[in-house]
Amino acid sequence: MTNHAAPRQRHAFKLLLSLALSLPLLAVAAEPLPSWNDGPSKKSIIEFVQAVTTEGSKDYVKPAERIAVFDNDGTLWSEQPMYFQVLFALEEVKRMAPQHPQWKTEQPFKAVLENDHQALAASGMDGLMKIIGATHTGITTAAFMDNAKTWLSQARHPKTGKPYTEMIFQPMLEMLDYLRSQDFKTYIVSGGEVEFMRAFAEQVYGIPPEQVIGTTFATQFQLNGNDASILRLPKLAHNDDGPGKPESIQQVIGRQPILAFGNSDGDLQMLQWTAAGPGKRFMGLVHHTDAKREWAYDRQSNIGRLDKALDEANKRGWSVVDMSTEWNRIYPFDTGTTEQKK
Amino acid sequence: MTNHAAPRQRHAFKLLLSLALSLPLLAVAAEPLPSWNDGPSKKSIIEFVQAVTTEGSKDYVKPAERIAVFDNDGTLWSEQPMYFQVLFALEEVKRMAPQHPQWKTEQPFKAVLENDHQALAASGMDGLMKIIGATHTGITTAAFMDNAKTWLSQARHPKTGKPYTEMIFQPMLEMLDYLRSQDFKTYIVSGGEVEFMRAFAEQVYGIPPEQVIGTTFATQFQLNGNDASILRLPKLAHNDDGPGKPESIQQVIGRQPILAFGNSDGDLQMLQWTAAGPGKRFMGLVHHTDAKREWAYDRQSNIGRLDKALDEANKRGWSVVDMSTEWNRIYPFDTGTTEQKK
Repeated sequence: MTNHAAPRQRHAFKLLLSLALSLPLLAVAAEPLPSWNDGPSKKSIIEFVQAVTTEGSKDYVKPAERIAVFDNDGTLWSEQPMYFQVLFALEEVKRMAPQHPQWKTEQPFKAVLENDHQALAASGMDGLMKIIGATHTGITTAAFMDNAKTWLSQARHPKTGKPYTEMIFQPMLEMLDYLRSQDFKTYIVSGGEVEFMRAFAEQVYGIPPEQVIGTTFATQFQLNGNDASILRLPKLAHNDDGPGKPESIQQVIGRQPILAFGNSDGDLQMLQWTAAGPGKRFMGLVHHTDAKREWAYDRQSNIGRLDKALDEANKRGWSVVDMSTEWNRIYPFDTGTTEQKK
Repeated sequence: MTNHAAPRQRHAFKLLLSLALSLPLLAVAAEPLPSWNDGPSKKSIIEFVQAVTTEGSKDYVKPAERIAVFDNDGTLWSEQPMYFQVLFALEEVKRMAPQHPQWKTEQPFKAVLENDHQALAASGMDGLMKIIGATHTGITTAAFMDNAKTWLSQARHPKTGKPYTEMIFQPMLEMLDYLRSQDFKTYIVSGGEVEFMRAFAEQVYGIPPEQVIGTTFATQFQLNGNDASILRLPKLAHNDDGPGKPESIQQVIGRQPILAFGNSDGDLQMLQWTAAGPGKRFMGLVHHTDAKREWAYDRQSNIGRLDKALDEANKRGWSVVDMSTEWNRIYPFDTGTTEQKK
């Protein structure tokens, strides 16, 4: 563009310039959370974020203290018909069976190999712990990470036929992005085993390994010449459920979160701990109310039971997200429903 | 500046412009690490950082994977005549004594109150653990943090008369800043108790609480109405020394560091773990060789013994920083020595 440009060109240039200058403004004004219908939860989230990020506001929180914690199973991805990590463990038993011929006659492994659901259920929590131990420990973290990544890339969900890493909630992905765009640090705090979640959290949620907190096994440093590794031991170090969540948040992060999102009674203490901090806070629960697009369950469910936490949320005015009316998309692969235009 | 400007003004403008344009280049070229004399360690640090941060270099490491871990006692601050945290515990016993009249007759507390070094030494590691337990646990994390901050603001080192938080190593502060300017994430990984270090790490080193890893006690979430707290229990959860360092690095960070700095045999496994990763790595040890400006100790010292790690560093070509010749300043309050102009 020079002084020789014709008036018409100059006019076009001015128009482009004024458009370009207004873009940053438009970007800020653009509606975040497009997969959330206008409703109480979306309104509360946006009001909260604006309050704590507006300099000069009485609710202002410095970026370094904008810690947001999210449960994973049932909050960031689905958890039915069973926690995906348990499905991983069951399939690992089958994959590993040739190297463990004794499993053909040894419970609970026999039940897994024979798809004997009754015998598996009868083995109870002890049986499950044996299965988790056999598939999650006794190997290095590097080897376990390989196993988890291989399974995640190959396995398909029995109902949707989709990779598990696609059964993540589009509205929550948008919320994670929105929070990060406002200088929040987003963490997973979940009962899932920490390395299993790290196998996909960065790629799928944009959450790096150091922001994943979960259940942990004891480990042992090993040295062989100059070659070092970390061995996973069959001994639980931390159960990241219920009161274990605020405990691990303090241990690992060392700051009280200002936002917490969960979906079950196992998240209650994390929400209570977040609510107990000074200043404005946001506590939210995903309520699984959509039997058609996802699942509907709460007080009576064995997986992801939401009972006490629902009562407390209602009593204290925490956000309870009604999935069936507040989310116009569930998964990224959904094309949306009639609710979308609401 | 318009077309009406005189030729001379235009010349001045061009000069200013060319200066302004060259500034970013100058900033990059400016010598980092001014408190380090030109010597093998400074050279190795800068060569390493340039290699892993230069895009297209065969040694290039993505910013997200630029994890740098530092021991604290003897690496970032002094540790003589005793770990500063132990001095804190001893002084806390005296402060708390009025609420614990039985300590007047109960060892090891009696020894502390009477400054009876012989009886204190005789109480050994068991005695020390009792003192740490009595001063570090049985209270909430918030209350402990208050105690630690109060002590740090009031206590003075017996030799220098300075606050402990000023007995930090200026060359290491510069290294932390330099690494962060090159998109490294800097962590403390120390045998010190995690909350004690968090009481000053952000203010003093610019390291936020979530990047402080240390020894931990078991904790318990407590709820009283809507008021929640985390109680510190007199039970060790993790001893962050020796093999405990790579174990906690994997547990908390979930990535193998590419740079590690320590000063004692307790850091050996952290350095071995760092060295075992693929690609270019940096392993460094601070060697306390300066009896005049700081302290001189290594193979025979009870505090911060450097023996096996020194042998391994020499064998494998890791950087060993000779404090007396390589650092022209030790503490920020030092004005520098004749070495500075070298």
